[in-house]
Amino acid sequence: MRIVVALGGNALLKRGQPLTVQNQRENVKTAARALAPLARQHSLIITHGNGPQVGLLALEAAAYTGVEPYTLDVLGAESEGMIGYMIEQELGNILPENVPFATILTQVEVDPADPAFQSPTKPIGPQYFRAEAERLAREHGWSIGPDNGLFRRVVPSPRPKRIFELRVIEWLVERGVVVICTGGGGIPTMLTPDGVLVGVEAVIDKDLAGALLAKSLGAEVFLMLTDAEAVWDHWGAPDSRALRRVSPAALETLSFAAGSMGPKVAAACDFARVTGGRAGIGSLEDAVAIIDGLAGTLVSNEFEGLDYWPSLFYQPE
Amino acid sequence: MRIVVALGGNALLKRGQPLTVQNQRENVKTAARALAPLARQHSLIITHGNGPQVGLLALEAAAYTGVEPYTLDVLGAESEGMIGYMIEQELGNILPENVPFATILTQVEVDPADPAFQSPTKPIGPQYFRAEAERLAREHGWSIGPDNGLFRRVVPSPRPKRIFELRVIEWLVERGVVVICTGGGGIPTMLTPDGVLVGVEAVIDKDLAGALLAKSLGAEVFLMLTDAEAVWDHWGAPDSRALRRVSPAALETLSFAAGSMGPKVAAACDFARVTGGRAGIGSLEDAVAIIDGLAGTLVSNEFEGLDYWPSLFYQPE
Repeated sequence: MRIVVALGGNALLKRGQPLTVQNQRENVKTAARALAPLARQHSLIITHGNGPQVGLLALEAAAYTGVEPYTLDVLGAESEGMIGYMIEQELGNILPENVPFATILTQVEVDPADPAFQSPTKPIGPQYFRAEAERLAREHGWSIGPDNGLFRRVVPSPRPKRIFELRVIEWLVERGVVVICTGGGGIPTMLTPDGVLVGVEAVIDKDLAGALLAKSLGAEVFLMLTDAEAVWDHWGAPDSRALRRVSPAALETLSFAAGSMGPKVAAACDFARVTGGRAGIGSLEDAVAIIDGLAGTLVSNEFEGLDYWPSLFYQPE
Repeated sequence: MRIVVALGGNALLKRGQPLTVQNQRENVKTAARALAPLARQHSLIITHGNGPQVGLLALEAAAYTGVEPYTLDVLGAESEGMIGYMIEQELGNILPENVPFATILTQVEVDPADPAFQSPTKPIGPQYFRAEAERLAREHGWSIGPDNGLFRRVVPSPRPKRIFELRVIEWLVERGVVVICTGGGGIPTMLTPDGVLVGVEAVIDKDLAGALLAKSLGAEVFLMLTDAEAVWDHWGAPDSRALRRVSPAALETLSFAAGSMGPKVAAACDFARVTGGRAGIGSLEDAVAIIDGLAGTLVSNEFEGLDYWPSLFYQPE
């Protein structure tokens, strides 16, 4: 089978951990151990988030006053290099020496007319007090938005339209290469009216970009690995329950948090509906079990309605 | 023909320019215009330096005190992402839309027993006064060395032994892909006695890594583009002359500056001797002319001794 796996931010950094090289490496090693069985049995394509890494690069750039901080497309490209390197090296250390790897820098096209450009909503970087946020907004032309009583920079999160390196990725997958690509949702780019490709100050949702990648490659399975064991109906409420097997139509009748499970559910429904394949959502350590239906949530046209795990299997927190 | 081109630092940043995104983009656009004719006619593989970029990433990391600065392997990976992205995008904007591109993150193996680890000589990052340099050396375990009356951090520059992603690069070149790889000499890595691949605090010379790439791919031509029009015999002296066509054996009887033309000449001689192909050294804007023997210096077993340009062609500065 051909499987696209999207690693969530926590695969690289647990909540609250300082973003040291050592912490990232330890987490990537754990992720590599979880993914190795998939790489042994299937064609594996890996994509990943980059939120904390781009946040750090932006903080470092802001702390050094010698040069104007770089734009988000360039920071995204840097993060694809940094994270791709660690994943390739650590997974390479587990798999047999003859398994070929490629980390492909990936440019993703967005639509200049995407409504996201009219209403930036994706918070990035650190929190500021209001006055400081407003000063930075004036200075750099940022949009800012409230965030837990403080303020953060917000940027547009347009939908991914096209992955420019798709042919190359396809050729490598055909040759049996483990490909790491479309990191952080891909480097955001757009075509100008003159047909020139340019970088964009935006962040593409990595799960939506992962779904586009999985659809474009004709993957049978699209797996989103995160720090939730499954998709929870009524998450956080006393009657919350973990979903086991659901149809995209039924899943879309429920509502989920915009910043966390929402995009994953949207990406899963999109992939399942368009391809007829299976989208899985669950914990990193359950990667294999999710595909076998033994853990996490599977979304597919083959299922009807909403099927839940017995509450003994997953305990509401 | 299959051509490997190594872009020198000045292809991305002219001496003294601040390292802004805008400056890098303008320089990369110029480089892309120079390389486009080669990509139209030949199989083109591009590699590049990363000295100023890694220097900036290190300065930014040092300015932000929240996290310990990242190691040189990780900074190298970041710079491969940043620079590869700009080259791929700008060259892509010139070539026909159907030309496929791939920027491949590249790990290069070095030998733990390389004598360079006993005597670090490659200066990186900013200059410091002696006391500051000594404090930093104690704090971070750096080696430091004198640099024009001040001090800089010096790191080992071991020889490149093996390019791990070589098969992938070969497959892509066979498919007609313009490949950007081995940036900054590649990410420095080594195998531990247990066979685990790990990153190394070192910098691999990009011209030696480019020569290894060109040899490994069976390239007919290995072109090093820099800010010198040619290799100069007695550079800077009144009797300096620009070399036109030379044999590796004759070229190796001359001596060149260790930090600049020395590694290029060594890389050219190595490539020409081992492969029987042609190595070229000269200006970015002369890329096509160098291959045709109309500019720059060509090194090959086909030539005998040292052949010079008439002094009317290149004027000693």
